Amino acid sequence: MRRVLVLHGPNLNWLGKREPKVYGHFTLDEVNQALEELAAELGMELKIMQTNWEGQIVDWIQAESEWAQGILINPGAFTHYCYSLRDAIASVSLPAVEVHCTNIHAREAFRHESVVVPVCVGQISGFGLNSYLLGLRALNHYIEARID
Amino acid sequence: MRRVLVLHGPNLNWLGKREPKVYGHFTLDEVNQALEELAAELGMELKIMQTNWEGQIVDWIQAESEWAQGILINPGAFTHYCYSLRDAIASVSLPAVEVHCTNIHAREAFRHESVVVPVCVGQISGFGLNSYLLGLRALNHYIEARID
Amino acid sequence: MRRVLVLHGPNLNWLGKREPKVYGHFTLDEVNQALEELAAELGMELKIMQTNWEGQIVDWIQAESEWAQGILINPGAFTHYCYSLRDAIASVSLPAVEVHCTNIHAREAFRHESVVVPVCVGQISGFGLNSYLLGLRALNHYIEARID
Amino acid sequence: MRRVLVLHGPNLNWLGKREPKVYGHFTLDEVNQALEELAAELGMELKIMQTNWEGQIVDWIQAESEWAQGILINPGAFTHYCYSLRDAIASVSLPAVEVHCTNIHAREAFRHESVVVPVCVGQISGFGLNSYLLGLRALNHYIEARID
Amino acid sequence: MRRVLVLHGPNLNWLGKREPKVYGHFTLDEVNQALEELAAELGMELKIMQTNWEGQIVDWIQAESEWAQGILINPGAFTHYCYSLRDAIASVSLPAVEVHCTNIHAREAFRHESVVVPVCVGQISGFGLNSYLLGLRALNHYIEARID
Amino acid sequence: MRRVLVLHGPNLNWLGKREPKVYGHFTLDEVNQALEELAAELGMELKIMQTNWEGQIVDWIQAESEWAQGILINPGAFTHYCYSLRDAIASVSLPAVEVHCTNIHAREAFRHESVVVPVCVGQISGFGLNSYLLGLRALNHYIEARID
Amino acid sequence: MRRVLVLHGPNLNWLGKREPKVYGHFTLDEVNQALEELAAELGMELKIMQTNWEGQIVDWIQAESEWAQGILINPGAFTHYCYSLRDAIASVSLPAVEVHCTNIHAREAFRHESVVVPVCVGQISGFGLNSYLLGLRALNHYIEARID
Amino acid sequence: MRRVLVLHGPNLNWLGKREPKVYGHFTLDEVNQALEELAAELGMELKIMQTNWEGQIVDWIQAESEWAQGILINPGAFTHYCYSLRDAIASVSLPAVEVHCTNIHAREAFRHESVVVPVCVGQISGFGLNSYLLGLRALNHYIEARID
Amino acid sequence: MRRVLVLHGPNLNWLGKREPKVYGHFTLDEVNQALEELAAELGMELKIMQTNWEGQIVDWIQAESEWAQGILINPGAFTHYCYSLRDAIASVSLPAVEVHCTNIHAREAFRHESVVVPVCVGQISGFGLNSYLLGLRALNHYIEARID
Amino acid sequence: MRRVLVLHGPNLNWLGKREPKVYGHFTLDEVNQALEELAAELGMELKIMQTNWEGQIVDWIQAESEWAQGILINPGAFTHYCYSLRDAIASVSLPAVEVHCTNIHAREAFRHESVVVPVCVGQISGFGLNSYLLGLRALNHYIEARID
Amino acid sequence: MRRVLVLHGPNLNWLGKREPKVYGHFTLDEVNQALEELAAELGMELKIMQTNWEGQIVDWIQAESEWAQGILINPGAFTHYCYSLRDAIASVSLPAVEVHCTNIHAREAFRHESVVVPVCVGQISGFGLNSYLLGLRALNHYIEARID
Amino acid sequence: MRRVLVLHGPNLNWLGKREPKVYGHFTLDEVNQALEELAAELGMELKIMQTNWEGQIVDWIQAESEWAQGILINPGAFTHYCYSLRDAIASVSLPAVEVHCTNIHAREAFRHESVVVPVCVGQISGFGLNSYLLGLRALNHYIEARID
Repeated sequence: MRRVLVLHGPNLNWLGKREPKVYGHFTLDEVNQALEELAAELGMELKIMQTNWEGQIVDWIQAESEWAQGILINPGAFTHYCYSLRDAIASVSLPAVEVHCTNIHAREAFRHESVVVPVCVGQISGFGLNSYLLGLRALNHYIEARID
Repeated sequence: MRRVLVLHGPNLNWLGKREPKVYGHFTLDEVNQALEELAAELGMELKIMQTNWEGQIVDWIQAESEWAQGILINPGAFTHYCYSLRDAIASVSLPAVEVHCTNIHAREAFRHESVVVPVCVGQISGFGLNSYLLGLRALNHYIEARID
Repeated sequence: MRRVLVLHGPNLNWLGKREPKVYGHFTLDEVNQALEELAAELGMELKIMQTNWEGQIVDWIQAESEWAQGILINPGAFTHYCYSLRDAIASVSLPAVEVHCTNIHAREAFRHESVVVPVCVGQISGFGLNSYLLGLRALNHYIEARID
Repeated sequence: MRRVLVLHGPNLNWLGKREPKVYGHFTLDEVNQALEELAAELGMELKIMQTNWEGQIVDWIQAESEWAQGILINPGAFTHYCYSLRDAIASVSLPAVEVHCTNIHAREAFRHESVVVPVCVGQISGFGLNSYLLGLRALNHYIEARID
Repeated sequence: MRRVLVLHGPNLNWLGKREPKVYGHFTLDEVNQALEELAAELGMELKIMQTNWEGQIVDWIQAESEWAQGILINPGAFTHYCYSLRDAIASVSLPAVEVHCTNIHAREAFRHESVVVPVCVGQISGFGLNSYLLGLRALNHYIEARID
Repeated sequence: MRRVLVLHGPNLNWLGKREPKVYGHFTLDEVNQALEELAAELGMELKIMQTNWEGQIVDWIQAESEWAQGILINPGAFTHYCYSLRDAIASVSLPAVEVHCTNIHAREAFRHESVVVPVCVGQISGFGLNSYLLGLRALNHYIEARID
Repeated sequence: MRRVLVLHGPNLNWLGKREPKVYGHFTLDEVNQALEELAAELGMELKIMQTNWEGQIVDWIQAESEWAQGILINPGAFTHYCYSLRDAIASVSLPAVEVHCTNIHAREAFRHESVVVPVCVGQISGFGLNSYLLGLRALNHYIEARID
Repeated sequence: MRRVLVLHGPNLNWLGKREPKVYGHFTLDEVNQALEELAAELGMELKIMQTNWEGQIVDWIQAESEWAQGILINPGAFTHYCYSLRDAIASVSLPAVEVHCTNIHAREAFRHESVVVPVCVGQISGFGLNSYLLGLRALNHYIEARID
Repeated sequence: MRRVLVLHGPNLNWLGKREPKVYGHFTLDEVNQALEELAAELGMELKIMQTNWEGQIVDWIQAESEWAQGILINPGAFTHYCYSLRDAIASVSLPAVEVHCTNIHAREAFRHESVVVPVCVGQISGFGLNSYLLGLRALNHYIEARID
Repeated sequence: MRRVLVLHGPNLNWLGKREPKVYGHFTLDEVNQALEELAAELGMELKIMQTNWEGQIVDWIQAESEWAQGILINPGAFTHYCYSLRDAIASVSLPAVEVHCTNIHAREAFRHESVVVPVCVGQISGFGLNSYLLGLRALNHYIEARID
Repeated sequence: MRRVLVLHGPNLNWLGKREPKVYGHFTLDEVNQALEELAAELGMELKIMQTNWEGQIVDWIQAESEWAQGILINPGAFTHYCYSLRDAIASVSLPAVEVHCTNIHAREAFRHESVVVPVCVGQISGFGLNSYLLGLRALNHYIEARID
Repeated sequence: MRRVLVLHGPNLNWLGKREPKVYGHFTLDEVNQALEELAAELGMELKIMQTNWEGQIVDWIQAESEWAQGILINPGAFTHYCYSLRDAIASVSLPAVEVHCTNIHAREAFRHESVVVPVCVGQISGFGLNSYLLGLRALNHYIEARID
C-alpha cells in the first residue's frame, strides 16, 4: 500500500465556518473522510494532520519522511511566504502535490504566487473539497509511475 | 450525458515530439484516447479540437457554447497573453477548467501568470497526461454539482 | 462620400449575449444599424467587418487601405497586446479612431493600457453603443478637416 | 432642459496661445461658443467655468451639484494627480465625462494615467476642439437614457 | 487650556452626503460638535476649519502656528500627494495627528500611502466619526506628556 | 460586559527593554495594567496574551472566537508578512483593531505595509502605550454600535 | 533692462524658521534683498512673489508672461507633483530656471524627481541662499545670449 | 543543398510602403529576390512565406520541420509577445535566426525585448534588407558547422 | 570565557541528508562538534540549539540574552522573511553574526536578500561547514575588541 | 579602401581559454585573422585593438575618429553599463556595429540590455566567431551605401 | 588664494565637436579659459584636468586632496554609474560641486539619476559653458563661508 | 605553498583616512601586514595589489592566473557595477572570495547587490580588517579541500 502524508495548513480546521462564501460549506472532517474513502478505493494509507504552526509542518515532514511515499499539502496562507516549508519539502526526497480549495489565481494578487509549488510535482486549485481528491489521485498516479 | 468541449492550444499537436524532457513522451492522440475512455466511464460526451490559431479557439468556443456544458482547455502558450481567449470564456456562460502538462509555476517567469485562469473554475498543472484526466474529473464533478 | 472601414475585434459578435451587465444589452447588429444610419446622415459609406482573428484584421486593413479614408475600430481584447495590429494601422496612411463600449480605464489594470492608441487619432471609451457613433462623428470630422 | 456644468482645468484659458503644435490653434472662447451652439441644438443649458485652482474646481462641483445634471470636464494637468477632484466627482451623484484635446495616451508616460476617469462615465481624447463637442453629445445621451 | 487646530481637507464638508456607504451617515457638523464636546471635557480649546484648497491649509497652519499647540488633521485626498502640506507641518514645530474615517489601508492602493504621516506623531484610520475623537485624545495626551 | 481578546505579538514582552529610543520606556505589564484599568472603566472584560509564535496567535484567535466579541492586536513584526494571521482574523466573525506603539508609516519601508489591516476595522499607530488605550476605546465603541 | 519674474513656492515664506538645520538660517526677505542687489548690479528688474497656492503660481505666470523675459522659480514641494505648474511654464514662451536651497538629490527619494525641470532651461540645487543668486545669473546670461 | 524556411511576419508584405523612413524603401519582393540570389550562391534552397497570422506561422513551422534544416525569421511585431511562436521553434529541432530590418534596441521600449530570441541561435538587427542576407549567411554557416 | 549562543534555523538538522549537492555532505552534528572544538581553542563557551520554529528562536534569544555575549546564527529560510527574528536580535543588545553554508547571493533571487543582516555585525556565506567556523572567529574577535 | 576600427572589449583576449562552453574554442588571434582575410576580400583596411580598460577604448575611438570610416565593436561586459563608451561613439560621427559571440538575449538578465546599441547602426549576436565576420560585412555594406 | 581642482570626465575633451546640437559649440579650451578668467577675478587658483579614465579621476582626487580646498567636477557619463568616483569624493574631506552643460533631467531617463551628487554640495545643470562658471562661483562661496 | 592573489579595489588605499566612522581606523598597510602574517602562519604566499582602475584589476587577474591558486578580493565600489571584473574572475579557473570591511547589506540600497559574488565561492562582510583575515582562511581552506 502506498503511504501518503496529508498536511492541512493554518485555518483549514475552520473550513465550513471560515468565510463559507469563499471556501465553501464543507468541513475539514468531511474532507478527511472523503480522502480516506478515496484512499481505501485506491489502496493507499494516509496520515492526516492539521496545524496552524509553520514549525510543526516542517517537523512533521521530517518525521514522516521515512514512512511516507508522497505528500498532499494545502499550505493555506503559508503558500505565499513560508520558505522554510519550501525547503523542508525540497529536503526530503518525496513528491508533493499542492492543493487549494479556491482558485487562488483569481483572488488577491498576493495569493497568485506560491513559494512552495516550485518544489512540488504540481498544483490543483479551485475545486473546493474536490481539489483534495484530485490531488490524491494525482499523487497516487505519480507514485505508481515512479515505482513501476 | 454531460457534454464537454476539449480544446488543445498551439503546439500541443506536437506532444511526444516536442521537447520530450519537458513535456513527456505521450502524444496528443494518447491524451485524447485517455480522455475518451474516462469520458465513457463518467458518462460524458466530448468534442476534441486542436489548433495553433487563437482566433480559431475563440470561434469554437462561441460555436459550441449551446452544445457544451463545460470546457476543458490547455491553452498552451496562449495562457500567458491571449486576452481574447479570456474574454471568449467569460462571454459564454460555461464553466472552464485550465490544465497544463508541466508545472508552469516552476518554469520561466512568464509562464507563472495565466491571463485565462481568472475566468475559469480552477487550474491543474504538473501531472503530464494525467492533468487532462484530473481536469475532466474536476469539470464533471463541477457540472454535476451545478445541475443537482 | 467619405469611406470608412469599421472593424470589430474578438467577441464583439457576442454583444448583447456577452456579460450584459458589463457590456450592455444591445447587439452588434444594432450597433451596425445605428452606424449605417449615422453614416447616411453624415454622407459616409461604411464597410463593416467583425472577426475573432488578429491576422484577419491586419489583412483587412491592408486590403482596404486604398478604398478607405479612415478606420473606426473597437479592437476588443486585442487592444492590450496585439502589436501587429498597431503596426498595421501605422503602416497604412489612414486616420484611425479607437472606441470601447466600456470605460476601460475603470476596469482591470490590464485594460487601462492600449498598445494600439499611440498610432490612432484618439480614443473614446465608456458610452456603450454610443461610443461607436461618437467615434464615427470624430472620424468624419477629422477626415473633413484634412480634406479641406 | 438638461443642465450641464462645463469645467476647464488649469492652463486651458491659454488654448490657442499654448504650444499650438500640441494643442491646436483654437481658443477657449471658440470652444465655449461651439459648446453653447451644440447645447442650444441639443436643448441643454450650460454653466461654463475655467480655473487654474484645484480647490476652486472642487468648490464649484459641490456648489452646482444641485443645479447640474451632469459634468463635462477637461481637468488639464489635474487629470494625473488630483485625487481631491476625483473624490469631489465621486461625492456628488452626477455623471461626468472627461475630455482631452490631445491624445493623452500617445504623449509622455505621466499623461497616460488619469486618476479622475475611474469615477467618470467615460473618456474622450485626441480630437481637439471636437473632443468637447463629442463629450457634450455623450453626456446628453447618457442623461437622456437615465431619465427615460 | 491646550489649544488645537482642527483641519478638515477637501470634500469633508460633504460628509453624510458623500458616498455614505463608504464614509458613513454623520455630517461634518456632527463631527465638529462631538469634537467640541470632547474638547470641553478634556479642557482643550479648538479652532476648526475646512477647505477644499491645499494652499489654504498651508496658510492656516502657518497662521495658527503661534496660537496652536497641536494639529488634528484629516487631509482627505490631500493625504496621498500633497507634499506642500507635509512640508508645512514639518515647518511649524507642532505635533500633528492624522485621522481618517475610513480604513484607508483596506481601500484602493493609492490610498494606502500617506505622504503626510511621516511628519506626524501618528495615524488613526477606520473608526468613522470616532477616528476624530480618538485623534483628539491622542493629541491631548501627547501635548500633556510633552508639557510635563 | 463586553469581552475582548488582547493579543501582543513577538518581542512585545520586551517593551521597556527593547530599543527604548524607538519603542519607549514603558513595559508590557504597564500596558496591560493600563488596559485593565480602562477596561474596568468602560465595563469590558479582557483576556490578555503575548507570544512570539505565529501559530500560537492563530490558535488563540480560534479558541477564543466564541468567548470574545472583539480583538485588540499589536501583531509586532507579524504585521508585515503573516498571511495566516490575516486569514485567522478573517475566519472568525469578530471585529479587530490593529495597534502599534510606533508610527510604522514613518519607519523602514517594510513596516509601512500591513498584511493584516485589510481585515481589521482600523489601525492606530504612533502613540506609544496610548495606542493600546485608544484602540480599546475604538473597539469598545465599535462593539457598542454594532450591538445597539 | 531685463525683466524677471521671481516665484517662491509653498512654505518658502518660512525660510529661517523652517527646519533651519535643513534649510539654513536666512529668511525669505534676505533672499529677496540679495536678489534685488544682484539684479541692480546686473541691470535687471524683478517682480518677486510668494504663495502657498499652486493655482496662484499658475495665474501669476500667465499674468506676467507679457511683462517678463524669464522666470526664476523655487517651486518648493510643488516641484515633485504639480504638473499644472509644469504646463504653465511650457505654455508661456519664457525661459525658466529652477532653484533649490537644499541638494534635493541627496534627500528623500521623492525629492529627487522634479516634474517641472523638463520644461526649464536648467536646475541649481544645494547652495542655500546662493542658489537663487546663481540662478539669477544663469537666467540673465541665458536671456542675454538669446537677445544678442 | 541546405534547405531553409524563410518566414516573414505581419506587415512585412508592406515593406517599401510601410513607414519608409523607419523601414526603408525596399520591398519584400526585393528582399526575397536578394535572398534567392544569395541562396543560389551559397548552394541553399529556400521556401519563402509571409503571413499576418500567428497561427499560420506555427502551422508552417510544423509542416516544414521535416523538409527544412534551418529557419530564417523576421517575426515582425510577433517578436514581442507571441509565445506560441517561441514554443513552435523550440518544439521543432531546427536552428533559427531572428532578423530585423530596424535596430529594434534603439526604438520604443516594447521593441527591445524579444520573446522569440531565447530559442534562436542568434539575432541580427538594424541593417535593412541586408539583415536578411547576413541572417542567411549566419544560418548557412551554422548548419554547415553542425553537419560537419 | 566568552559565551555564545549558536542558533540553527529550519531544516538545518537535515544537513547531510538535505540536497547534498547544494548543502554538502557534512551533518549538523559535525558542524556542532567542529564549533565546540574551535570554541575550546578560542576559550569560548557555546549553547547550541536548532529548531524549525520561528517563535522558538525568538524565545531562545530572549531567554539567553543575559547569559550570552554574542549570537552566531544560520537562520536558514527564515533569513528571507522573518522580521520577528530581526526584531528579536535588535531587541537584545548582543552582536550577531549571520552565516550560510551556501553562497546565497548566487542562488535563487529570493535568497539574495536577508531581512536579518541589517541588525547583525556581518554576514559570511558560501564556505560550507567552514562558514560556521569563520563566523565563530569573527564573533570572538568582535567581542574581544568590544571588551578591551 | 574603406578603413575600419575593430575594438575588442574586456576579457576577449581570453577567447578560447574563457569558459569555452559558453564562448567557444576559437581564440582572439583566430578572430582577427579571419577578420583580416575578409577585409582583404572586401577591400577594407583594419586597425584591431583589444583592451580591458574602458578609458582606453574611449581614447582609441577619439584618436582614430579621423582615420576610421566605421567601428566594429564587441564591448564585452562594457555593453551593459559603460555609458562613457556610448557617449564616445555618439560623439564621433562614425557608424558602429555591435557584435557578440554569444546570444546575449538568451543569457542572464543583465546581459539582455545594451547601453551602447542605441547609438549603433545595429547588433549581431549569437554566431561565435562568425558574428564578427557578419558584422564586418554589415559595416562594409553600410559604409558603401553611405558613400554612394 | 583658494585652490580648486577642476575635473572633466570622459568625452568632454570633444566639446564643440561632440553632438553640438546637444552640447553646444564651445570647446573645452574655451571652458578652461573662461574658468581661469573667473578664477583670477575671484582670487582662486585652479588645477584643470580631463580624462576618459575613471581610475585616473580617482587617482587625481586622492593625489590633490592635500592641495585642493574644493572640487569642481563634470563627471560626464561617469555621473550615472561610477560608484568608485562617488566613494573617492566621499573619502577626501573636500566640498565638491557637480556641473553639467546640458539639462540632464530633461534627457534620456538614465541621465536623470546621478550616483555622485549625494556626496556633493550641490548640482548645476543646463547652462552650457556657463554651468562651469556658476559652479566655480558656488564653490568659491561655499569655501569662503566655511573658512570664515 | 599555496599562492594567492590579493586585490584591493578603488579607494581602499585610503583606509584609515577614508570616512573612519564607516570604514574604521586601520590602514591598508596594516591590512596587508596582517594578511602576510596570517599567510605565513598558514603556509601561503601572497601577491598584494591595489588599484583604482577597473582595467588594471582585470589585467592583473589575467596576468597572475597561472601563478595564483586563488583570489582574495575586496572590489570596493566595483562590487556593484563592474561586470568586466565579474567576467574576468569567471574567465580564469580560480576560486575567489569577496570581502568587505563594512556590512554592505546594512548600508545604502545600491551596496546590497554584488555583481561579482555570483562567480565567487563566497562573501564575507562586516568585520573590518578581520574580514580580510577570515577571507584568507576561507580561501586557504577551500584550496586545501580541492587539492586533497
